[in-house]
Amino acid sequence: MDKETVKIGLLGSGTIGGGVIALLNRNGSEISEKIDVNLVLGKVADRDLSRLQALRLPEEIISTKAVDVLEDPEIDVVIELIGGIEPARSMIISALDNGKHVVTANKDLMAAYGEELLSLARDKNLNIYYEASVGGGIPLIRPLKQSLIADRICRLVGIVNGTTNYIFTRMAQDNLSLEEALSEAKKLGFAEADPSSDIEGRDAAYKLMILSRLAFGSSIDPGQVYVEGISAVTDQDIAYAREIGFTVKLLAIGEKMPEGLALRVHPALVPLEHPLASVLNEFNAIYIEGDAIGEVMFYGRGAGAMPTATAVLADVAEAARSIRYNCAGAVSEKSFQKASFVPIKDLNNRFYLRFLADDRPGVFAALANAFGDEQVSLDMVIQKRRVDSTAEIVLVTHDVREEAFHRAFKKVMSIPSIKPNPSMIRLLG
Amino acid sequence: MDKETVKIGLLGSGTIGGGVIALLNRNGSEISEKIDVNLVLGKVADRDLSRLQALRLPEEIISTKAVDVLEDPEIDVVIELIGGIEPARSMIISALDNGKHVVTANKDLMAAYGEELLSLARDKNLNIYYEASVGGGIPLIRPLKQSLIADRICRLVGIVNGTTNYIFTRMAQDNLSLEEALSEAKKLGFAEADPSSDIEGRDAAYKLMILSRLAFGSSIDPGQVYVEGISAVTDQDIAYAREIGFTVKLLAIGEKMPEGLALRVHPALVPLEHPLASVLNEFNAIYIEGDAIGEVMFYGRGAGAMPTATAVLADVAEAARSIRYNCAGAVSEKSFQKASFVPIKDLNNRFYLRFLADDRPGVFAALANAFGDEQVSLDMVIQKRRVDSTAEIVLVTHDVREEAFHRAFKKVMSIPSIKPNPSMIRLLG
Repeated sequence: MDKETVKIGLLGSGTIGGGVIALLNRNGSEISEKIDVNLVLGKVADRDLSRLQALRLPEEIISTKAVDVLEDPEIDVVIELIGGIEPARSMIISALDNGKHVVTANKDLMAAYGEELLSLARDKNLNIYYEASVGGGIPLIRPLKQSLIADRICRLVGIVNGTTNYIFTRMAQDNLSLEEALSEAKKLGFAEADPSSDIEGRDAAYKLMILSRLAFGSSIDPGQVYVEGISAVTDQDIAYAREIGFTVKLLAIGEKMPEGLALRVHPALVPLEHPLASVLNEFNAIYIEGDAIGEVMFYGRGAGAMPTATAVLADVAEAARSIRYNCAGAVSEKSFQKASFVPIKDLNNRFYLRFLADDRPGVFAALANAFGDEQVSLDMVIQKRRVDSTAEIVLVTHDVREEAFHRAFKKVMSIPSIKPNPSMIRLLG
Repeated sequence: MDKETVKIGLLGSGTIGGGVIALLNRNGSEISEKIDVNLVLGKVADRDLSRLQALRLPEEIISTKAVDVLEDPEIDVVIELIGGIEPARSMIISALDNGKHVVTANKDLMAAYGEELLSLARDKNLNIYYEASVGGGIPLIRPLKQSLIADRICRLVGIVNGTTNYIFTRMAQDNLSLEEALSEAKKLGFAEADPSSDIEGRDAAYKLMILSRLAFGSSIDPGQVYVEGISAVTDQDIAYAREIGFTVKLLAIGEKMPEGLALRVHPALVPLEHPLASVLNEFNAIYIEGDAIGEVMFYGRGAGAMPTATAVLADVAEAARSIRYNCAGAVSEKSFQKASFVPIKDLNNRFYLRFLADDRPGVFAALANAFGDEQVSLDMVIQKRRVDSTAEIVLVTHDVREEAFHRAFKKVMSIPSIKPNPSMIRLLG
C-alpha cells in the first residue's frame, strides 16, 4: 500500500529554516519510514527572494508570500520560523483557520500568546507543537507533557540561555571580564549583535514562562516573573564564588509553593557539586524536581540550526502521525489553571554580598548591627585583600526573606565607611 | 459528557507495584484530568496474598491468580511488574492475546524478547510501553522514539547501573575498597543481596540492548555485546585516575560505525570535565551523540519505587490516550533492521594500565620494546612509589586497536621483572 503523504509548508528560510531543509534532505526518507508517512516539503515562503534562491529548491515550491503557504490546500503542516510576535502570530492563526497543524520555534510568541494560540488550536482539533522554542534540540516540551505527566513538579531550575552561560564560563575559566567574554561570544556566534535580551534575562524569562506553564499546568502572567540580568556580575565575584565552592550561572527558576508560583530569572551561586554547575559554555540544561521522580535533568545544545532542526522535525513527525492516525486530540494541551504568584520580596533566599570598606575600627560592629537588626544571620564573612587601607568584605547570609535582606542591605550601604557599588548575588537554595 | 474510563490491571504488588498504586492514589485524578480519561485500578494480582493484603485494597480487586487480570474483559491495560523472563513473558503474550495494551518495567524480558513481543503487539494493533525498563523515571524510551526521530544517533554512552555508580562514587570520595563500598550500598538498599548482575555488568548490558535497539533501529544479538564487570577496579586505580584528570565509571556504550554496531559494557576512565563525570552516587545518565543534535544527556534516578512508578504511569497515560483516540498504531515501533556487529577486538581504544615491577635496570627498555613491537604508543608513563625495590608503573596509551594492545599487554606481562595482577581499564574516547 502506498504511504500517506503529509505536505509541509515552511515560513522563513533563515538559519533554522535552512537547517530544517538540510535535515529533511538528509534524513527525510528514514523519518518517513519510521512514521509510515511520506513527508514532503510542499512550499517555502520568505520575503527575501535571494535567501530563498540560495536554497536551490525547485522554482514552483518557493514564494515570497506567506499566503501561498497558508492558503495552499495541499499543505498539512506549517512550520513557522519567522520569529517575533507579528506577523508570526497572525500567520499561525491563519494556518489554524486553514486547518493546518503548526510547528513553531518561536519562543517570544509561545511565551506571550501561547495560551491563546493553543486554545484556538484545540477548538479546531489541531495542534501547535513548539519543542524547538526552548532549549534547541533538547527534548523538554514532550517530556514535560508526556513523560512527567504522572508526577507533581515542585521546582524547575534551568540554564536556558547559552549566551550568558558561555560568558560566565569564559569569565570563570579564563578570568575574562564580562565585556571581554561577551565580545568573544559575539565572535563565535554565541551572541547576537544586540545581546540585550540575553544579557538582561528576557530571553530566559520567556523560556521560563513556556516551561512553567507546562510544568505547573498554570496560566503565566508575564508581569509576575522577576527578571534580573547578568551585567552586575564581575569576574572578581566569580573568582570569590569558586573559592567558597560555587560557580555563577544565570538561572531561570520556577517553584510551586503553598502560596502560589514563584518565577524568577537572576544570576545565582550554584554549588560546584550540583549537576547544573558542570553545564559549561553554550550548553543548556533544565533540572526538574518532582514529588515522586526526585530529580531529573535534561542537557544539550540550546541553540544552533541543526540541533533546533531536530526538534522542529520531531514535531513535524508527531503532527504527521496525528494526521495519519486521525488523533490530533490525543496530545492536545488541556486548558491551564489560573494561579497565584508569590512576589520575589516574599521569597526566602541566601545572598552573597561583596563590597569595599574603609579599614577602620567599628566597621564590622556596624555591619553586624545592620544585619542583626533585621534578623539576617550570616553563614560566612571573609575579609579579603587590603589595598590603601581599604578592606574587601565577602559575606554569605543564611536563608532570609528578601524583604528583610533588602532592608538590612540598605542599612549596610548607609554605613559611612562602606563604599558604593557592592555586588549582590543570590544562591541556589 | 462523562469521561471514558480505562481500567488498569496490575501484575505484581512488590516495591514498584506498591509505588504505582500509591502514585495513582495521589495523582490519579490530576492525570485523568490531563488526558481526559478516567484511570481506574481494576484488578491487582500477586501470588503472595499477604503482600496483596498489605495494600489495603478492596477485596474484590485483589487476586492471587494472574489469569484473573489477564482474562478480565474489563481490563484495558496490563502493567507487568513480575520481572524476569518467565512467567512474565507468557503473561504479556496472554495479555496481548486478550486485546490488552501492556506496560512493563521488565528489563531482562525487553532486552531478550523485546522484538518478538513488540512485533506480536504490532500485529494485534496494540502497544507495549517500557519506559520504566531503563533508567527508572528518567525519560529515555519516549525521547528516543519521538524526540530524536529526525536525527541519526552515532553513539550513546550510559551510566545505567546505580549500584556500581554508587560503589565507584564511594570508592573515589571516601577511599573505600570495592568490598567496603558494596557493603555500604547493600545497607542503603542500592545493591541487592546478590549483586552479581550489577557487579558483572549484565544489568547494564540488558539496558544497553534496549537503548541500542531504539537508538539504531536495529535488532540486537545478545551474543554481540561485550560485557566486563567492575570487580577488577581498585581504589588505587580510582585515585590514580583522578590524579591524571579522570574518574572511573561503568559505562554502557553503543556506537554506530561504518562497519556495524559496537556494543560494550566495561569500566572506563571518564575525563573529569565530561558531563558523565559528575553523575554521582546512585544516579544514572545517558549521553547521546547525534549527527544533527550534537550531544544531549538525560540524568536522574535510575531506580526506586516512586521514580519508576512515574515512568509506569506515564506509559499507562499514553496507552489510555491511544485507546481514547483509537490510534494505537501512531506510536508503535516499526520492525528493526538486521545489523552487523563489530567485535571488541576490532575497536580502537585508549588504555590505562597499572602494574608493579622490580625496580631494576632494563625494565623500562623491555616495556618500551613490548609496546613498540605492536605499534602501541604511550601518552603517559608515570612511575609511582617505590616499596622494597618495587616500582609501581601507571601508563596510558594513545588510541590503539584492541587486538594489538592485547598482544603488547601479553608481552609486557611476560617480562620477568613485571609482577602479575595488573589493572587494565579503558578510557572513554
